[in-house]
Amino acid sequence: MPQKFPIVIIGAGFGGLQAAKSLARSGKEVLLIDRNNYHTFVPLLYQVATGQIEPELIAYPVRTILRRRYGHFLMAEVEEIDFSHRVVRTNKLDIQYDYLVVATGSQTQYFGVAGAAEFALPMRTLEQAVTLRDRIFSCFEAASCLEPEHRQHLLTFAIVGGGATGVEIVGAFVELVRSRIRREYPSLNWREVKLILLQSSDRLLKEFPAKLGGAAQKYLQKLGVDIRLETRVKQISAQEVYLSNGQKISTATVIWTAGLEAAIPNSSQELITATKGKLCVKATLQSLTYPNVYAIGDAAYVEHLVKPLSGVAPVALQQGIAVAQNITRQMRGQKLKPFRYFNKGRLAIVGCYSGVGLIGKWKLTGILAWAMWLGVHLVYLPGLRNRLVVLISWLQTYLLGDRPVRSILASHRLLETAAIKTSNKHQ
Amino acid sequence: MPQKFPIVIIGAGFGGLQAAKSLARSGKEVLLIDRNNYHTFVPLLYQVATGQIEPELIAYPVRTILRRRYGHFLMAEVEEIDFSHRVVRTNKLDIQYDYLVVATGSQTQYFGVAGAAEFALPMRTLEQAVTLRDRIFSCFEAASCLEPEHRQHLLTFAIVGGGATGVEIVGAFVELVRSRIRREYPSLNWREVKLILLQSSDRLLKEFPAKLGGAAQKYLQKLGVDIRLETRVKQISAQEVYLSNGQKISTATVIWTAGLEAAIPNSSQELITATKGKLCVKATLQSLTYPNVYAIGDAAYVEHLVKPLSGVAPVALQQGIAVAQNITRQMRGQKLKPFRYFNKGRLAIVGCYSGVGLIGKWKLTGILAWAMWLGVHLVYLPGLRNRLVVLISWLQTYLLGDRPVRSILASHRLLETAAIKTSNKHQ
Repeated sequence: MPQKFPIVIIGAGFGGLQAAKSLARSGKEVLLIDRNNYHTFVPLLYQVATGQIEPELIAYPVRTILRRRYGHFLMAEVEEIDFSHRVVRTNKLDIQYDYLVVATGSQTQYFGVAGAAEFALPMRTLEQAVTLRDRIFSCFEAASCLEPEHRQHLLTFAIVGGGATGVEIVGAFVELVRSRIRREYPSLNWREVKLILLQSSDRLLKEFPAKLGGAAQKYLQKLGVDIRLETRVKQISAQEVYLSNGQKISTATVIWTAGLEAAIPNSSQELITATKGKLCVKATLQSLTYPNVYAIGDAAYVEHLVKPLSGVAPVALQQGIAVAQNITRQMRGQKLKPFRYFNKGRLAIVGCYSGVGLIGKWKLTGILAWAMWLGVHLVYLPGLRNRLVVLISWLQTYLLGDRPVRSILASHRLLETAAIKTSNKHQ
Repeated sequence: MPQKFPIVIIGAGFGGLQAAKSLARSGKEVLLIDRNNYHTFVPLLYQVATGQIEPELIAYPVRTILRRRYGHFLMAEVEEIDFSHRVVRTNKLDIQYDYLVVATGSQTQYFGVAGAAEFALPMRTLEQAVTLRDRIFSCFEAASCLEPEHRQHLLTFAIVGGGATGVEIVGAFVELVRSRIRREYPSLNWREVKLILLQSSDRLLKEFPAKLGGAAQKYLQKLGVDIRLETRVKQISAQEVYLSNGQKISTATVIWTAGLEAAIPNSSQELITATKGKLCVKATLQSLTYPNVYAIGDAAYVEHLVKPLSGVAPVALQQGIAVAQNITRQMRGQKLKPFRYFNKGRLAIVGCYSGVGLIGKWKLTGILAWAMWLGVHLVYLPGLRNRLVVLISWLQTYLLGDRPVRSILASHRLLETAAIKTSNKHQ
């Protein structure tokens, strides 16, 4: 593999992949680097976590997407970027570049909460979603062997974070416990399952207007979810969550969706960052210091109508196209154009046939928003076969109420073994 | 969960699951115990290993299969069986039984070959098939970064064992390297990929007549597979295989399909075993020592026309039905019947549209046997959705030559990192 490329992009998420596709399509030699050999379709992670679809359906091989003459891929971990020498050092090769795009996305942020990194389960990557799925079904299996007085912590699930991710996972959880699997655990009383959604601010879905956040909250409460607003987590242990108001929740599963920060690789020269560690960029998406370095997506701090753009796929996709165009202009010695975000609207899925949406000034709630959310994501999911299989899965889960994907991998059995043996000995 | 069951079955493979279904259907309370919460459809493991289908498609939840009034499931590891007290001790609960069926199947056997357990990759469980898939694609990714003189060991794959499993995996490998993925690794020369099949005896497919083994061998050799008969493995290291004839193969991937032995749980009382550690049973499938204990499938030594029955699904399925009937007779105080195996024939898939088969006296080779193998296994695969999705996958792979499932999980990247960094430093 050559060790110099005109354009190097780090990160095969929505932004980086779009930039790579756009550049390769226009005949520019581009190298895309990612630690995984697949692109993760993040919006459907929660469906992997609740057993609706197989993980591989949302993990599309990058090489297949870049199956073009000019698109190259390197599966490697970036260890450091040397901006002054224009070198990206990875755990495999060192790559020289003329132009660089940092599209490394975001990672989970724990806000320094004690025990969170160790005991809470984030849901940002495919592996984390599979781990979460395994934990959920392990808890059901473990609880099946215990008497009711010994198993409440296994049937209580705390979700930290009331944004779109927290709301969708708790809604999917309600769908799960109402699905056909109820008939498969005869020793479980499903009324014992407690879902608790913890939100630090005063409403859910802060990115949406208050009315929509309120609608989502009302609906989830009607479905039996215990929503606690203005509640922060102080500490997490293996079987408890301690809240800032002094309360304690006994639970073996804490799902962390409370915050993200930019995932910026190490660099030999400091770059200016903003909130959540995002790189500050000009309107053209260029770094403030190095005109041949760009940043997009969750890694970049870009303002829109005074507020910073939130980390959603449409933003990253549009920035991917924009950065490809600006690099092309730069290569031709032309003037660069500032990035302008075209907001097509925003949708969030709540679950149980409900969602919320904001398109222009129209506020949507209910089954229409739900169907639109599913429809949009089905269209954008890479791979015809994947779209077909996901559609079949949705028919099965939404029409038949079934859950076909429930295998538990070996390594995650540690939890239940410890929890059960201890409980069993005390019986 | 009650801790006493009239009938306890250990193992949710073909035999155990069939026995549980038959008993539950006839109104007997039965508990099925397995360390996994899913039944693995083993014949399609090799398709998971070569990226044709997702692992979850062949992992069907046991609870869904036993969704009946009398069928119960416990996900646990059996630690010991106490035959005299009629107790099965697991890592969760101790279960008392009146009747016990040992259907624990088989595990990989390494014949004491040095380094085999540590470095070779078996393909007996779902996790092992996924590990193998990850290894294969990791090797391709790693080799992409290296010059030809440094990467041969990454593109050489040794398969130990020329039975049905070895033949099917090497054939699927040929399909893989001929598939569309060729276009996705521009820095690889696919002619460098070497597939070496090592067989200790003098022909492939020893369970089939010599003519069929010969046909399979001829076909694979025409496809470019290097077949070495009467070749034993003496030692395996991280990057080499040492053969008994003094030769050495430089390879980072050794796939072990050379042997299985029965996987019998520990017991407080010794049971008489035969070849491969299988439990000796009477013609009624009862243990020789304990009339209320049965053994079936790979765990049992049963003769048919003088030879021991081989470990294939039809044998286990028929024994599962037979043991259910015999336990029912025993409960009623009736005379038990000996098990008689009805041999419907045997098929093996070779790959690239070829297979072999023996049905009665008819010997089949070529595309008819291939299509029959696929058809039979599609019909027997549990789950309508799974059958539909597997069929879609086969259309995609066999008609379009594509491979959609190629994600590599994190934990398996260790191999390529070490191999590459070392190679990179020496460049």
